[in-house]
Amino acid sequence: MTLDTTWFTETYPKDGAAFSFKIKAKLHEERTPYQHIEIYDTEGFGKLMVIDGCVMLTDRDNFLYHEMMSHPVLFAHRAPKKVMVIGGGDCGTLREVLKHPGVEEAWQVEIDERVTRLAEKYFPELCSANDDPRARLYFGDGIQWLKDADPGSLDAIIVDSTDPVGPAEGLFNEAFYRNCHRALRPDGILVGQSESPLFHKALIESMHQAMRAAGFDHTRTLSFPQCVYPSGWWSATLAGKGVDPLQFREQDARKKEFDTLYYTADIHKAALVMPAFMEGIGG
Amino acid sequence: MTLDTTWFTETYPKDGAAFSFKIKAKLHEERTPYQHIEIYDTEGFGKLMVIDGCVMLTDRDNFLYHEMMSHPVLFAHRAPKKVMVIGGGDCGTLREVLKHPGVEEAWQVEIDERVTRLAEKYFPELCSANDDPRARLYFGDGIQWLKDADPGSLDAIIVDSTDPVGPAEGLFNEAFYRNCHRALRPDGILVGQSESPLFHKALIESMHQAMRAAGFDHTRTLSFPQCVYPSGWWSATLAGKGVDPLQFREQDARKKEFDTLYYTADIHKAALVMPAFMEGIGG
Repeated sequence: MTLDTTWFTETYPKDGAAFSFKIKAKLHEERTPYQHIEIYDTEGFGKLMVIDGCVMLTDRDNFLYHEMMSHPVLFAHRAPKKVMVIGGGDCGTLREVLKHPGVEEAWQVEIDERVTRLAEKYFPELCSANDDPRARLYFGDGIQWLKDADPGSLDAIIVDSTDPVGPAEGLFNEAFYRNCHRALRPDGILVGQSESPLFHKALIESMHQAMRAAGFDHTRTLSFPQCVYPSGWWSATLAGKGVDPLQFREQDARKKEFDTLYYTADIHKAALVMPAFMEGIGG
Repeated sequence: MTLDTTWFTETYPKDGAAFSFKIKAKLHEERTPYQHIEIYDTEGFGKLMVIDGCVMLTDRDNFLYHEMMSHPVLFAHRAPKKVMVIGGGDCGTLREVLKHPGVEEAWQVEIDERVTRLAEKYFPELCSANDDPRARLYFGDGIQWLKDADPGSLDAIIVDSTDPVGPAEGLFNEAFYRNCHRALRPDGILVGQSESPLFHKALIESMHQAMRAAGFDHTRTLSFPQCVYPSGWWSATLAGKGVDPLQFREQDARKKEFDTLYYTADIHKAALVMPAFMEGIGG
């Protein structure tokens, strides 16, 4: 069958595949100085945000991504106090970060303020922590922000970016990781979304190499299901400055006093297990 | 965008979503007494088999499903000798089962012989074990085959079926599980594909209940990524007759002398970890 215009479709041209949502209504569309943003109401996934034709998030399944981008890195760190989210304009990662009572300051450095303003309107539950006194919303260039950051001033950096093309291209290379390494305190940890194990294994390998070349001592990839991203299987890659992010505060994770839908201490361990075809990546 | 006729699309109407493949050519199409089978050559996934409009398998990602339907149940069993695959006409599960040197007899009971004949032609690598002297290919009704099976004659039953509608509907209820329980030896284990954790949590819960009601002592669900099935995240549910399929021969799995692309002993353990929203299912 062919899909009519009541569907929104994202195609993955290199992989000859596409994922589509049945649409109830287009709620919003605009071109910002950075990108083209669309918001839809869907039949099966609640609200949907699309940037430059790529699905960013839906109400139904964003919990997977946001939890796995924040809790593993924060429980891997011995005591994260100052955390930076680069990108993440929908504020879902920021919300998860602020669930950690030990975090004293959480910066969200998003280049496109419109993403956040639209999230506040259409995904208010993701923005429920924006008024937390520990939240710092800054709209500007995250690469520059990191260059300007005091050396050794951050405990964790979370790169919650779009794909490595367009505005996010500079978030996947050694020069950027070098700035992250410099800005982290000793024992600091960086994590970046690292695309699909099935579709983008070469990218994941190149991220590990670039992170090591930038000075990180240990790098690890974790994976999780993510229905609305290419292949339905997604990953994040962690890099430790003097620490191995395979280790984490397991007892603290078990005793966490906040709710999650996907993350648990056991999921944390399970997510770090590499399938046979990826064994040997990281270490 | 809308997708033109160079794409094959499967829609998931209840979930308002669809997955599509860019097609190079339709290689075959026929209506058998049981179902409508199509074979395509795709741009990104190699060959694709579709039954009644539902994606069955592709060259690119079938390893995930076939490995996870066979190795966990066989390493969970203490010494599986006689194994039955119900459905599984593409022979991919049979091939994985026969990688276990201890298996003496592996039955594949597929209702539609045409599925196997087409697999032999278009997916020959999945059929590479069909000539193994331990392989028994039987074409007929698996439900009846199980009813007729000698009580206590099987070590493992693998329900490698289509969705619980049409020919496979009878493979998801208590009456069927009761026949499985009867046909299994003590310590025998049943595993059935159990759809998507994200889309079909209620079905998974009902399978656990039906398996317990049929006499199984312990039931467990494992999950794995599966790009081309609805939501990209799939599951299998195990039921043990006098044993808990959470336990497995971990050392044997570590020392296995056959290749896999996804399965490892650590993946086995990781796959059995339930995400927060499914905790409490199984036990």
